[in-house]
Amino acid sequence: MQTLTRTAAIAEQALAWRAQGLRVGFVPTMGFLHRGHTSLMELARPRCDKLVVSIFVNPLQFGVNEDLDRYPRDPEGDAAKCRAAGVDVLFVPDDFYPPDHSTRVRVEGLSEGLCGTSRPVFFEGITTVVARLFGVVQPTVTVFGEKDYQQLAIIRRMVRDLALPIEVLGGPLIRDDDGLALSSRNAYLSPAQRARALSLHRALFAMAAAEERDAAALIALGRSILDVDTFDYLEIRDAVTLAPLETVDRPARALVGCWIGGTRLIDNVAIERPWT
Amino acid sequence: MQTLTRTAAIAEQALAWRAQGLRVGFVPTMGFLHRGHTSLMELARPRCDKLVVSIFVNPLQFGVNEDLDRYPRDPEGDAAKCRAAGVDVLFVPDDFYPPDHSTRVRVEGLSEGLCGTSRPVFFEGITTVVARLFGVVQPTVTVFGEKDYQQLAIIRRMVRDLALPIEVLGGPLIRDDDGLALSSRNAYLSPAQRARALSLHRALFAMAAAEERDAAALIALGRSILDVDTFDYLEIRDAVTLAPLETVDRPARALVGCWIGGTRLIDNVAIERPWT
Repeated sequence: MQTLTRTAAIAEQALAWRAQGLRVGFVPTMGFLHRGHTSLMELARPRCDKLVVSIFVNPLQFGVNEDLDRYPRDPEGDAAKCRAAGVDVLFVPDDFYPPDHSTRVRVEGLSEGLCGTSRPVFFEGITTVVARLFGVVQPTVTVFGEKDYQQLAIIRRMVRDLALPIEVLGGPLIRDDDGLALSSRNAYLSPAQRARALSLHRALFAMAAAEERDAAALIALGRSILDVDTFDYLEIRDAVTLAPLETVDRPARALVGCWIGGTRLIDNVAIERPWT
Repeated sequence: MQTLTRTAAIAEQALAWRAQGLRVGFVPTMGFLHRGHTSLMELARPRCDKLVVSIFVNPLQFGVNEDLDRYPRDPEGDAAKCRAAGVDVLFVPDDFYPPDHSTRVRVEGLSEGLCGTSRPVFFEGITTVVARLFGVVQPTVTVFGEKDYQQLAIIRRMVRDLALPIEVLGGPLIRDDDGLALSSRNAYLSPAQRARALSLHRALFAMAAAEERDAAALIALGRSILDVDTFDYLEIRDAVTLAPLETVDRPARALVGCWIGGTRLIDNVAIERPWT
């Protein structure tokens, strides 16, 4: 595995691969890798000739009071996990944005609501960094986790709208043994906080299992189970368009975002009903 | 020459060319082609294996009271000019934006001032359409005219920031025999209006020829020559960064935008001084 830190170096490598007709797989991350990330690499690996993983804690997607400075890091552990996953190039840029970088990419509509309400700069920061990463890496296929379900929908839309010749795959959300959705931010939780964090997936699982199609009733059920410090959102949306649903009459997704102490957590599950 | 109207068809063609290692040249236009446009095709032709010209009057770059509906069109004349210029594919999309297209690309800073002041949606509309056109056409090299000098600077910045592997060439502004900068919108001018429109390049040429480095004095000279109905801007900017200049102490550009009757006209010239 090669580690590249200069953006021009990976861009040159990517164009050389493209000229050879090689399929490039790409998994962008912010590091502190866990099984959620490596599962994305496993999805990409058989679909490409060269697999690139990036680790870049993107300042554009953090608000002023968010955890940019304390975001957890583990460069050596990350490199070992990438090597084990068969990554060809680990891209850890130290010069990613030019000093006068001034191009912004945003996806309207899908970026509003859910996580976009409490984190207004968040998704524009993500689409901006991912668009530039796609330019640099020139992937044939990219994998994003369903853990960040809204992000995945936004990336799919951006790729379609910019007519990028990139296949976007969604990787299933990975849970720890106790059911907590894997997240680098779980490292912030104390044992007592972690116990309460389990209420997120319990609320979602109860909604998924209920014999109920009324969204408001399902949300009330979920809220009765949630045990969090700051409630952000709990919603049921169309699984594809993310349009709000009053009745679960098509494939849907229940999504939750909230805070336990100073840690923001999100989770989501499919809401499947026998469609008549 | 092949004419394609379906976006998926040109995208498929472009990827096939790319897989064959062919260099694709691309000149995006809004049609009603004149020698300014064909000069861009002539610049691109020897630099590529396949030359694509698009004709698309992009609604995103017109304000609500602008001339989208009356923008001049000449499909047959355009096709003949493209054929004569050796164009391989003329792309005239009839399905360019998906109905729920929602991705926007903007370049901050460079899009403000000059034409961006009176046309606030203009440059975001241009960067949005050009980013999607680049995705569809996958060009190796693209040519934009210096007539739209601010646009050229913005496209260069966008390509750099999105790390697109595309060479951006600027094509020199082309003038009619009387000196008027060629523009599709010149078709709107009556003979009397056209005579007054000549004051644009006369003002700029006087500024370029003056033995003067003070920007305010040069602008006063230019304004004394301009004979227009609505003055929009006359400025001297750094030729590369478009930063405002007080003194012409580096390569500069004088740029003018104004209205004669209902027709908006722009023009620009290099301001060269013996740099000491």
